[in-house]
Amino acid sequence: MAYKHLYHINSPKDIKNMNIKELQELSAELRTKIIETVSKNGGHLASNLGVVELTIALHKTFDLEQDKIIWDVGHQGYAHKLLTGRRDRFSTLRKKGGISGFINPKESKYDTFLTGHSSTSISAALGIAKTNELNGSQAYTISVIGDGALTGGLAFEGLNNAGEGVKNFIVVLNDNNMSINKNQGSIASYLNNIRSNYFYLNLKTKTVGVLSKVPLLGKPLISFTRAVKNKIKALIYPKTIFENLGFVYLGPVNGHNLKNLMYIFSCAKKMQKPVLVHVKTKKGKGYLPAELEPETYHSYSNNAAQKRTFSSNFGEVILKLAQNDERICTITAAMRDQVGLLEFSKQIPNRFFDVGIAEEHAVTFAAGMASNGFIPVIAIYSTFLQRGFDQLVNDVACSNYHIVLAVDRVGFVGEDGETHQGIFDAAFLSTIPNTTIYAPSSYKEQEQCLTWAINGKGLCVVRYPKGNEHSAADSFFEPNKEYLWLPQPDKDILLVTYGRLFETLVELPERFKKLGINVSILKLIQIHPILDEVLEIADNYRTVIFLEEGIETGSIAQQFGAKLHQMGSKTNFFMRAVQNKFIEQGSIEQQYQQTGLDTASVEQFIKTASLTVVKRKSQEGFKTTKEKVQDLNFEGVN
Amino acid sequence: MAYKHLYHINSPKDIKNMNIKELQELSAELRTKIIETVSKNGGHLASNLGVVELTIALHKTFDLEQDKIIWDVGHQGYAHKLLTGRRDRFSTLRKKGGISGFINPKESKYDTFLTGHSSTSISAALGIAKTNELNGSQAYTISVIGDGALTGGLAFEGLNNAGEGVKNFIVVLNDNNMSINKNQGSIASYLNNIRSNYFYLNLKTKTVGVLSKVPLLGKPLISFTRAVKNKIKALIYPKTIFENLGFVYLGPVNGHNLKNLMYIFSCAKKMQKPVLVHVKTKKGKGYLPAELEPETYHSYSNNAAQKRTFSSNFGEVILKLAQNDERICTITAAMRDQVGLLEFSKQIPNRFFDVGIAEEHAVTFAAGMASNGFIPVIAIYSTFLQRGFDQLVNDVACSNYHIVLAVDRVGFVGEDGETHQGIFDAAFLSTIPNTTIYAPSSYKEQEQCLTWAINGKGLCVVRYPKGNEHSAADSFFEPNKEYLWLPQPDKDILLVTYGRLFETLVELPERFKKLGINVSILKLIQIHPILDEVLEIADNYRTVIFLEEGIETGSIAQQFGAKLHQMGSKTNFFMRAVQNKFIEQGSIEQQYQQTGLDTASVEQFIKTASLTVVKRKSQEGFKTTKEKVQDLNFEGVN
Repeated sequence: MAYKHLYHINSPKDIKNMNIKELQELSAELRTKIIETVSKNGGHLASNLGVVELTIALHKTFDLEQDKIIWDVGHQGYAHKLLTGRRDRFSTLRKKGGISGFINPKESKYDTFLTGHSSTSISAALGIAKTNELNGSQAYTISVIGDGALTGGLAFEGLNNAGEGVKNFIVVLNDNNMSINKNQGSIASYLNNIRSNYFYLNLKTKTVGVLSKVPLLGKPLISFTRAVKNKIKALIYPKTIFENLGFVYLGPVNGHNLKNLMYIFSCAKKMQKPVLVHVKTKKGKGYLPAELEPETYHSYSNNAAQKRTFSSNFGEVILKLAQNDERICTITAAMRDQVGLLEFSKQIPNRFFDVGIAEEHAVTFAAGMASNGFIPVIAIYSTFLQRGFDQLVNDVACSNYHIVLAVDRVGFVGEDGETHQGIFDAAFLSTIPNTTIYAPSSYKEQEQCLTWAINGKGLCVVRYPKGNEHSAADSFFEPNKEYLWLPQPDKDILLVTYGRLFETLVELPERFKKLGINVSILKLIQIHPILDEVLEIADNYRTVIFLEEGIETGSIAQQFGAKLHQMGSKTNFFMRAVQNKFIEQGSIEQQYQQTGLDTASVEQFIKTASLTVVKRKSQEGFKTTKEKVQDLNFEGVN
Repeated sequence: MAYKHLYHINSPKDIKNMNIKELQELSAELRTKIIETVSKNGGHLASNLGVVELTIALHKTFDLEQDKIIWDVGHQGYAHKLLTGRRDRFSTLRKKGGISGFINPKESKYDTFLTGHSSTSISAALGIAKTNELNGSQAYTISVIGDGALTGGLAFEGLNNAGEGVKNFIVVLNDNNMSINKNQGSIASYLNNIRSNYFYLNLKTKTVGVLSKVPLLGKPLISFTRAVKNKIKALIYPKTIFENLGFVYLGPVNGHNLKNLMYIFSCAKKMQKPVLVHVKTKKGKGYLPAELEPETYHSYSNNAAQKRTFSSNFGEVILKLAQNDERICTITAAMRDQVGLLEFSKQIPNRFFDVGIAEEHAVTFAAGMASNGFIPVIAIYSTFLQRGFDQLVNDVACSNYHIVLAVDRVGFVGEDGETHQGIFDAAFLSTIPNTTIYAPSSYKEQEQCLTWAINGKGLCVVRYPKGNEHSAADSFFEPNKEYLWLPQPDKDILLVTYGRLFETLVELPERFKKLGINVSILKLIQIHPILDEVLEIADNYRTVIFLEEGIETGSIAQQFGAKLHQMGSKTNFFMRAVQNKFIEQGSIEQQYQQTGLDTASVEQFIKTASLTVVKRKSQEGFKTTKEKVQDLNFEGVN
């Protein structure tokens, strides 16, 4: 397809003079570009196709040099990116150093607020709008939020606060009747039932439109007319939830009709109260396969489909366990398919609960179930579990309820980047009393850990990464063992780690043998509480190196180091973890490299640490040739 | 006052045969008992006085041997406790080992779910109701939630899920038009405006009442009548928000009229859908001072009012700073007075924001403000900040916005007990990148830390305890210094700590001098990141003892110990912190004793640790008499 318009648009002002027909053509071009790029790079497809006209209408109606749009769960921002000077770099979507799959202020001044997690946009937009008022600015702040994101409690907290009153504040409800999976909860049914009051809308806004052109007289007249109309309206139209919460409600409007959209937004601009514009869109619009199967096309991966993953294995194992134990229920927060629970939801529908995007509720709901003698299993991404921290502390652990957390996507997640890394859960979960944490690195270990967790006490966590197990993982499985110890004859160096990172290290002992350095491996499976047994193993080594795919402060590595120091251990101790920073998008391999956790970097790290071993061995009376030390210092391992 | 009824009630069944007049007398007795006890022990007053009739009506209408009530923010449970076998122990309210100020399942089988934090009851109740359905139980589950708690997003998440459909599930909205402070947000105005539809209610429910007595015919007839009525109703009455969310809405009803309450609850029991009963109550009902000033009497402390506290000092300092810097705004989540912002809200109302009970929103709202160039200061209790963890990570730190957190009630909080201890914040906040944490222990230090925080970068945290500074705290102030080092001539022992715990240790160096042991103190003010400078100081000591009023795993103490071990430090290292458990109610002094952090326990701990010093000194060639070692082992310090 030839691009007639897209390549002439370098900033939002470039569409200001385009007519409806041209804008419609532009819509088609944007869709082509999005499909073309996502099919190569992976990314969110259906949601982006659904907001093409909405994006154009917002760009056309508002002045983005001062007005600010906040896209909730910023994975619906592709069209916005293509229209704000990022078209030529769009082929780098989700690549290292490239265009982010989410809205990101580091990337463009037109990206107002970093939105990776759902339901934040109303609160953030309100913060901007309130400070605009303090600045005396008349700029508009617009939150674009999906009906899925609206089920998150944070969105409601935002609505409740905004509804008290704020000017030039517009919430655009992008209603496609979908979360990532089919939308959950009564608000979804409610939105479906809101009556179409186009007629009323047109009448009202047209009047406003005409009157506001009369200078001086305009404002009082509008107020008067509006007051009368509101009285009439109250008699005829039941108020929507949004009006009850203090918003002017406009809509619903067809989200693929540019003319209607621009018209409704221009009306919204004229209100002196917070406005909610209800826009009906179709997820996947303009790409038939995505329209028909928006769940499948919510996000698109360019990798070959993996038959078996930790997620699918979790689903199989938990289904089997639940078939033999009627107390087991599973809970997801709008991620049924992604966490591997599709089959469970079909086989045991009455014990499967999709609570929508509502992680806090998922945890407290589970606590209620546990208080009634059931064993709830919450399957959730590590990054989204952060939302349930207080509920885990107070509603679960404080009463010592038995709940299983199946934490998916731990460690690096690759292309989704900084807001989605699963690098905090080991640290924050281990601070919670009455908690046990397992980190399997093979399917067999995962099954064993899930069985332990189901039969355990208190808060039992099984955490595992995105994707599949290491090809050789199977062969290392030892039943009924909370750790894997691969000792070498001499106690030179012990590498301690857990989870997927084991793969990075597994071949290193052989390589170091050639240098006369014995490198043993201790892979923890139970990572919290740290077992005395593993500390005693570590204490026997000259040098201990802890490697962790997680944030450094509060890490298991630090806890391990502190315990060694408390024991009065004389080991040399080194650690490498994520050095208290956010890790941007890229491949997982690139993220390992960036944090020094890839095999080559770890190898170099061990070489440096080996010097301490050589030093200690010479203190102990061992003889080491000068050449060997030099070998260690520089290259030479093949 | 003589108690005519109360002392005959030992379980919920004992009120089943009482008539209205007797129950009204019982209400008065309960109020007397509550006022009497709270005036001695402190506690929540106004909220408990407001729910006396509501409690009686629930106990009378439901069968608490199987039906379960979940009291949201369980500080409204005093009447419930007095009616469920805890009358005689009620004088121990909020004392160590006594009756909890909150609902607590450890205390009674009639306490269904531990509720210390707000807005959890609907989710927990839904978990119970759904598992009741799985069990085939017909028991009712009742959530009693205040209009204040309803502003928390978690409550909305619960409503949204329950509204999809669940049987024998009742939400009682206890609407007193108050949070702890005046209620915030548009939902509050909305509740005020719900029209009184008593007539409709009576008509409808009376009909149901009569028909359901007709056997067999009853149910279909009810359905038919209801269907017709609903159609009529839809024409006349605008639906409430709750109906839009899938609930049957009953009310509002006068929450101090026992007859009406019992009637409405008996109606609620007959519905086959989730029901919301809207009950209007008066906070402080029956005690005039509390009725007139419910904010003052929300909770009552039996301690003499402290003129100056860390909270009030925060308020003064931040007001002064804000008067000189128009970018500074303050935010509270329904705790204006408690966190010391009353005067700020009067002096600079346009830069003061009370967002209601909505901690997640508070953080993301602040992030929005920061993105627009302002400096938001969120004043919040440590325990409630746990709700904002994900927002701090993703909405603040990930974009490196500059936000100030004034974290109040850190460490032990005394009588509020396990759900309110501020023992997690140092651990979980320090895992967040781009964060600096200060822990002042005097007003002067607090002022300095707030100034640093306002002028700092990223997420700047100033954390301080409940109550007032140590009497001698002032004299230790050193300007522009991130730590306080009180060295003794020899490097025997270094006590490292931060915050209020310093008070416990300050006299110990003198006592140990008599034993010939030099005990130095290093009080951190900047506790994260840990400065290299303080690690170097510590490395010079024979023995380092880190004492921390916070959870052990992930603690600053562990981080400190790990760093020493990484440095290859040869110090002996000991730590004492909260050993991964929840600390129950009692006085703060008792909580210190329980965790071994009171002066006497720490003294004994140091004595034991001193043996390692003696041992090391003898290795170093020092001469130590046998007697001295024995002194250390046993008693002998005066």
